[in-house]
Amino acid sequence: MNKIITVSREFGSGGRELGKRLAEHLRIAYYDEEIITEIAKKSGLAEEYVKSIVERKTITYYPITIGRTLTTTFNPQLELSAKIYAEQNNIIKELASKSDCVMIGRCSDYILREYNPFKIFVYADMSSRLWRCRQRTPEKEYLSDTEMESRIRGIDKGRARYHEFLTGQTWGAKENYSLCINTSNIAIKDIVLPIAELFKTIYMISNDK
Amino acid sequence: MNKIITVSREFGSGGRELGKRLAEHLRIAYYDEEIITEIAKKSGLAEEYVKSIVERKTITYYPITIGRTLTTTFNPQLELSAKIYAEQNNIIKELASKSDCVMIGRCSDYILREYNPFKIFVYADMSSRLWRCRQRTPEKEYLSDTEMESRIRGIDKGRARYHEFLTGQTWGAKENYSLCINTSNIAIKDIVLPIAELFKTIYMISNDK
Repeated sequence: MNKIITVSREFGSGGRELGKRLAEHLRIAYYDEEIITEIAKKSGLAEEYVKSIVERKTITYYPITIGRTLTTTFNPQLELSAKIYAEQNNIIKELASKSDCVMIGRCSDYILREYNPFKIFVYADMSSRLWRCRQRTPEKEYLSDTEMESRIRGIDKGRARYHEFLTGQTWGAKENYSLCINTSNIAIKDIVLPIAELFKTIYMISNDK
Repeated sequence: MNKIITVSREFGSGGRELGKRLAEHLRIAYYDEEIITEIAKKSGLAEEYVKSIVERKTITYYPITIGRTLTTTFNPQLELSAKIYAEQNNIIKELASKSDCVMIGRCSDYILREYNPFKIFVYADMSSRLWRCRQRTPEKEYLSDTEMESRIRGIDKGRARYHEFLTGQTWGAKENYSLCINTSNIAIKDIVLPIAELFKTIYMISNDK
């Protein structure tokens, strides 16, 4: 059975960077936005729309369908969301069945539970998260600390709600993860090697790989 | 400033073993029962009594004082507890000031916060904790799984209450730790090296040590 690492993370905690670096270090596949692209491809829906559903963003526009007609039903919005969740479920399982990999978010920790994945949760204090967000936000998109903090909390609220809705579990409750790492005042690149070693040790993967 | 590792743990999660092995691997001091012994020495109280206070056990006997007389006050029990907490605080700080070390429990993560310690929380699912407890319980002290589970939950409840009473923080809330590690179905000896490496990486300790 393939060895899977799932990374769940608070916004601005550096979780995505950690996942990407772990995949590079371990030379295994990495899936993040790729999942959205695949869902869009298979469902014929626009990527942005799929993203808005799986990230529980506020939907401000109507879905663009490509090459198919939407059947008008009682609640097309609900039906589409259900379709996207089902598609996401299938795609995550399909990707996991191909090879060892790192999977970012999207309830993959729960969806892939039969693989017994190494489930990482990444979190940090607000000042570190603000600092990280500042590093990657273009200057023209200036937000005050209060606005940025409010955006961070909003995104996390969405993630928590999405996770709880699909899995019935509390997002970020340590019991649901193998490892929870606090990245406050830490450079992500520095912790990749020991975390990769911890994963290899627990999963008894030869160091020769 | 000395580098400190504090280990907080659910009962039966293997946290004490992890702390001891980390100290051995890193060749630094290890403090656990030693703290109780020191408090007893300095306060003139019996070790078992000190232990019952700092572990919030039910007290079934009256303290034995050695070489000093107890002044009768309004609430001698409360006064003694306060004295023990103060003594514990001093001793933990004194030990931390001596050298790098691993400190098990006793709110050392909070007491030593000015050292910015590497704060580990160790937890595991109930079946792993039952299994670990069985390994170390003498056969004559046989308890059913239900009894054992009830004892485990009782001890953790005491730890949580003690921690919250002294620190105002929620025991086990991941925000208060650097790393939370789930030791379900894991041999503690296997994870010592990568966790020691993580500590050394974060605290920029040379690997030559």
